[in-house]
Amino acid sequence: MSDRPLIFVTNDDGVNAEGIHRLAESVMDMGEVVMVAPDGPRSGGSASLTVGQPLRVTAHGRWKDVTKYSINGTPVDCVKLGLSMVVKRRPAVVLSGINHGANAGNSVVYSGTMGAAFEGTLQGIPSIGFSLIPFHPTDAEFESCRKYIRELVANAIENGTPDDMCLNVNFPGGGNIKGIKKARCCRGRWVEEYKEYKDPFDQSFYMLTGSYKNMEPESTDTDLYWLDRGYASISPVCAYRDMYDPCADEFLSKCNTLFKNE
Amino acid sequence: MSDRPLIFVTNDDGVNAEGIHRLAESVMDMGEVVMVAPDGPRSGGSASLTVGQPLRVTAHGRWKDVTKYSINGTPVDCVKLGLSMVVKRRPAVVLSGINHGANAGNSVVYSGTMGAAFEGTLQGIPSIGFSLIPFHPTDAEFESCRKYIRELVANAIENGTPDDMCLNVNFPGGGNIKGIKKARCCRGRWVEEYKEYKDPFDQSFYMLTGSYKNMEPESTDTDLYWLDRGYASISPVCAYRDMYDPCADEFLSKCNTLFKNE
Repeated sequence: MSDRPLIFVTNDDGVNAEGIHRLAESVMDMGEVVMVAPDGPRSGGSASLTVGQPLRVTAHGRWKDVTKYSINGTPVDCVKLGLSMVVKRRPAVVLSGINHGANAGNSVVYSGTMGAAFEGTLQGIPSIGFSLIPFHPTDAEFESCRKYIRELVANAIENGTPDDMCLNVNFPGGGNIKGIKKARCCRGRWVEEYKEYKDPFDQSFYMLTGSYKNMEPESTDTDLYWLDRGYASISPVCAYRDMYDPCADEFLSKCNTLFKNE
Repeated sequence: MSDRPLIFVTNDDGVNAEGIHRLAESVMDMGEVVMVAPDGPRSGGSASLTVGQPLRVTAHGRWKDVTKYSINGTPVDCVKLGLSMVVKRRPAVVLSGINHGANAGNSVVYSGTMGAAFEGTLQGIPSIGFSLIPFHPTDAEFESCRKYIRELVANAIENGTPDDMCLNVNFPGGGNIKGIKKARCCRGRWVEEYKEYKDPFDQSFYMLTGSYKNMEPESTDTDLYWLDRGYASISPVCAYRDMYDPCADEFLSKCNTLFKNE
């Protein structure tokens, strides 16, 4: 039993979400699957972690061949505390999702699904985030993701992933995936982001809303371009975010005074 | 008045922190400064945002030449809602900090200070996060950051920053900064991350702790290398995290079945 690869599964929709069960089920025969997920929804949680507050682990027994736990924290907390205190050996892979909703474009920044994948990466474990565009009233659309998930996970277990990088995989809704394309995150911006309300005391409050404006609809190498056309997208992303960009060098070279005496 | 550049200041330590006041004070004569910060500490908040919960803006009047507001949300909420509903025109720059504690190494992933800077970047506004290594019992150490902050902000206002990138600036503690060095985020890992406790009912809970293990102490181009030697560090980081890495291509090329029919 213990020579089977350990597959660590988490998400940001919480331990009761359908997506995480379908993800776990997809890879259940490929290793020992342990689920450690937030005790409720943590959408928009990014890579946030809990500082100075007590975290608790709740065991939920078995579901099919999967051992389930929940934690009263963020997706990152689930990976960190799960690796420290729940699993007894090092996972071969950390999987996050299947998120209920896309994490394409700039959602990679806010996504709790990807936050968990970044944490797996920082722990030195190959990590993949999976997301499915809504809406999916039936099981059929999760089912269409299955063969892609299995091949990506098998490859990550066998070959690892590049240092500091994880994979952001998005599936189109509708249940008929035409294929999968390598893509970068589509540049875009949320507009009209807040709706204003008045409370019973006539004081204003605001709730997040808005729509996503694709700032490069003509680019053929972005995740949104391919998702719009019925393909899944796969984007390698760097947990650390740093990169040597010639434009950045040019900017820094303009701060003459600061650097001139080095 | 309205032709002065608008300087938007936020942080993750909250509207009452000393660091944000010292940051605002440093640039007060360079434009109109508006502070929109969380109503309390949000350390470890990363780029998380508040979904489905009401956000409120509280006006705090003036401090010196600065107009102050707080929001009951995350650093990203402060930037998003601040830009949407608080300020009346587009800021020339978004500044975050001065964080009480370094955001070097992999802290760039978890940092709420940097979360706010990423949000400014995604809004298309030049953005810089500033952090100061603790401990700083006196004002002297903030004071030593001042000239660096002023030159970087002046340059960002005049020349902008590269698309999708912001700057992560870390200052050493101690008040005697030898200079500033371009650096990448030092690769490292937190170890022994949790302390276990027993509650009054003999149930376990856990609190985040741990120490940072520098995985490349010999590398001379990292932020931690220079901070350890008394220099400030400046790291350009990409909000989107995506990059075309030859290793990533190699990984994807191994998923033969998935891509063969394209």
